[in-house]
Amino acid sequence: MFYGCRVNEHERRLAQVVEGILASYREHGNINHLDGSNLPARSEVSELLDDLVSVVFPGYFNGEQLDGLTSRYFVGARCARILRRMEMVTGRALAVHQCQEQAQTSEVIAVRAHEHALELLQAIPQIRERIASDVKAAFVGDPAACSDAEIIMSYPGVAAIAVHRIAHYLYSQRVPLLPRMMSELVHSRTGIDLHPGATIGHSFFVDHGTGVVVGETSKIGNRVKLYQGVTLGAHSVKGRDKSAAPVQRHPTIEDDVTVYAGATILGGDTVIGRGSTIGGNVWLTRSVPAGTTVVLDTPSLRFFSLGDRQP
Amino acid sequence: MFYGCRVNEHERRLAQVVEGILASYREHGNINHLDGSNLPARSEVSELLDDLVSVVFPGYFNGEQLDGLTSRYFVGARCARILRRMEMVTGRALAVHQCQEQAQTSEVIAVRAHEHALELLQAIPQIRERIASDVKAAFVGDPAACSDAEIIMSYPGVAAIAVHRIAHYLYSQRVPLLPRMMSELVHSRTGIDLHPGATIGHSFFVDHGTGVVVGETSKIGNRVKLYQGVTLGAHSVKGRDKSAAPVQRHPTIEDDVTVYAGATILGGDTVIGRGSTIGGNVWLTRSVPAGTTVVLDTPSLRFFSLGDRQP
Amino acid sequence: MFYGCRVNEHERRLAQVVEGILASYREHGNINHLDGSNLPARSEVSELLDDLVSVVFPGYFNGEQLDGLTSRYFVGARCARILRRMEMVTGRALAVHQCQEQAQTSEVIAVRAHEHALELLQAIPQIRERIASDVKAAFVGDPAACSDAEIIMSYPGVAAIAVHRIAHYLYSQRVPLLPRMMSELVHSRTGIDLHPGATIGHSFFVDHGTGVVVGETSKIGNRVKLYQGVTLGAHSVKGRDKSAAPVQRHPTIEDDVTVYAGATILGGDTVIGRGSTIGGNVWLTRSVPAGTTVVLDTPSLRFFSLGDRQP
Repeated sequence: MFYGCRVNEHERRLAQVVEGILASYREHGNINHLDGSNLPARSEVSELLDDLVSVVFPGYFNGEQLDGLTSRYFVGARCARILRRMEMVTGRALAVHQCQEQAQTSEVIAVRAHEHALELLQAIPQIRERIASDVKAAFVGDPAACSDAEIIMSYPGVAAIAVHRIAHYLYSQRVPLLPRMMSELVHSRTGIDLHPGATIGHSFFVDHGTGVVVGETSKIGNRVKLYQGVTLGAHSVKGRDKSAAPVQRHPTIEDDVTVYAGATILGGDTVIGRGSTIGGNVWLTRSVPAGTTVVLDTPSLRFFSLGDRQP
Repeated sequence: MFYGCRVNEHERRLAQVVEGILASYREHGNINHLDGSNLPARSEVSELLDDLVSVVFPGYFNGEQLDGLTSRYFVGARCARILRRMEMVTGRALAVHQCQEQAQTSEVIAVRAHEHALELLQAIPQIRERIASDVKAAFVGDPAACSDAEIIMSYPGVAAIAVHRIAHYLYSQRVPLLPRMMSELVHSRTGIDLHPGATIGHSFFVDHGTGVVVGETSKIGNRVKLYQGVTLGAHSVKGRDKSAAPVQRHPTIEDDVTVYAGATILGGDTVIGRGSTIGGNVWLTRSVPAGTTVVLDTPSLRFFSLGDRQP
Repeated sequence: MFYGCRVNEHERRLAQVVEGILASYREHGNINHLDGSNLPARSEVSELLDDLVSVVFPGYFNGEQLDGLTSRYFVGARCARILRRMEMVTGRALAVHQCQEQAQTSEVIAVRAHEHALELLQAIPQIRERIASDVKAAFVGDPAACSDAEIIMSYPGVAAIAVHRIAHYLYSQRVPLLPRMMSELVHSRTGIDLHPGATIGHSFFVDHGTGVVVGETSKIGNRVKLYQGVTLGAHSVKGRDKSAAPVQRHPTIEDDVTVYAGATILGGDTVIGRGSTIGGNVWLTRSVPAGTTVVLDTPSLRFFSLGDRQP
């Protein structure tokens, strides 16, 4: 379509473009990663997570038939693969000195990555115990649920808490970068944003879930149920010193609390007492004692019928 | 990196890990699927859905040029592939006895899966008729819309209702597991959660859509428009008997109703009369007659200027 | 499984299905694209966007190690690929006469597509400058953020604004279809819906982000921060003449404004003065002067303790 001297003109313009972009790399260095080290790739973390989920829910997500005889070999093969993948991505995450002060030799990093990988595998039974309670809570909590298979294979709230249980374990072991990447992978898929730092008791159920946000220092008890659009958030903190010891910025939700759609609960001093019910769209920035029900005051609506002038 | 006796030590620890996970499979059986049968894989349902969508919107999503001459062969080839894929995933879904009482022979299951597959293909013209009305409603309803192509290829609300029309048909034919998996695939992609059980009239439009939840027993009339964050939900039902006949737990929305962003309408007895307008963030748990406008009472805001003390 | 005359019966039914679908194509033409031209495929736009993002954030998303020596060749190769991909998808978008009146020859379209592609590459340094300010804003604005790497690789708000900066550039150059497809790709992944038409100043940060909607004609100043579920929307416009000159239908947000979760700000005449703070769940349809804080009136809640009768 373009011939002769036009081709050279095109070459020249493209070369200029490349030089312009390279100049921009020198000018705005905070969004480059040009130190020659590898970062954990999103696709690698995604594959690792798929492997972990296939071991947590055997027979559901691995694409193979499993039974009592074959499951040992399946688990063995997957654990071996998880070990190697974890070593690799954890090693890369450790190497970028995520939130860390001093550099470490590649030997030291490799040993630490291996230990983190093995510890995660060792933790799978306790992680599964929690997740088994979450699936039961979903079955009990949703009238539309008709089988464990349906819940495990299609409920976004179950996908989100399952990944959270894994990511929170890695967060508690101080593995950098990886927990948040895992959380965001499932946030992207479900619209449910559970920060890996949040502490969540057993039998947790998020119904529908799109728009749920649970902040880093939230503490959630047992048998808590959240609906779509619920925020457990912080008051705005301007200019926090990131090197200071973390304080609790997000609420405490005690056992057996239900929070309905769109409710917002804010602040590290806010405690929702056990057995409380927080109604839809409620905005709450202070504690309530055990057994409290909080609802929006209904007279805040105005009704106009067809004959009236509308606002 | 690790040599000699360390290797054996590593082998020993990995073997322990595997045994620990297998013990956990015995202990928490509700999240296993170890009976040797295959489940419909998420990826298979996703591919089936892509095929269905490519036949519903010919020329938009199939990656090939289509015209009057070639479309017959395209449709023939896709229908044949849909038939076989539907037979496979439906057969698997039927085999896991989803919500069913008695086991069936694989012969019976295969015949039923084939019938479901063929019936779905036969229903495509009527499904397309509905979807054509939805695309028209999007074009009329959104000032920013500038062509059918833009709407079909990029509007999440159109993707969600198109998949819903398919999933609702399968739900009405009592195909297990598959309808909900389809709904959750598009929920994951769009943030719009339309339960396959919901009955939705023609010319339905969801604008933006993230956070929309429409419950299983909702009944929605013609020319209804919902904005992002709208919930058509149920009052909490504790311990419902899942074997009991389903009652209507979600609202009825009559023809020509518009519901603005963030509004929540709850309860199986709640009827929003035709032509009504429900304002943003409204929380409604009772019926309103035809032609009603409901808005939030505005004085519920407080304003502080720079000189004031802030709360 | 089926033999003899049953096979013919099956063939006959499948042939009927195909004819039924073809008849439906003739009847409901608004959801067909059967004119023999190719549309830009979602997957192609997605790959193009991945390439663009890998050049904007070098070393983060390309899956290769980059350093000072290798980055020139990486950028050169990617720019060449982006050029060709942009030419192809832009050419297809121009060819479907998106929002245009008169047909153009394929020669003219190819020249225009090439110019659009080159201009986008030339704009990357200025796009990067904006995105570098956005990443800084995220680091300052989120107490949980612990490194640029974490922000760039996992924050949905950063992914959304980075794609918006690219899509908005294409929108401002009047490239059809492509900007909205890009916006919807990242909306699908993040739940953040920034219309490519919206004008957004530097140092923009969306925290968490699920459910955020920013309309086509919004004007946003510098250092603005939005939380999840914020809507900058339009009053409903019925039957707008699409060929008329666009008026501002969405709000103006001046510099240094923070809008908390779930707030809704509507209307093209609404101006939020600089330095203002809009509280969570606030519903605002009129302007406020600079330095205003708007919060929900708290007494709109009712509390019931365990002994009380609940509503």
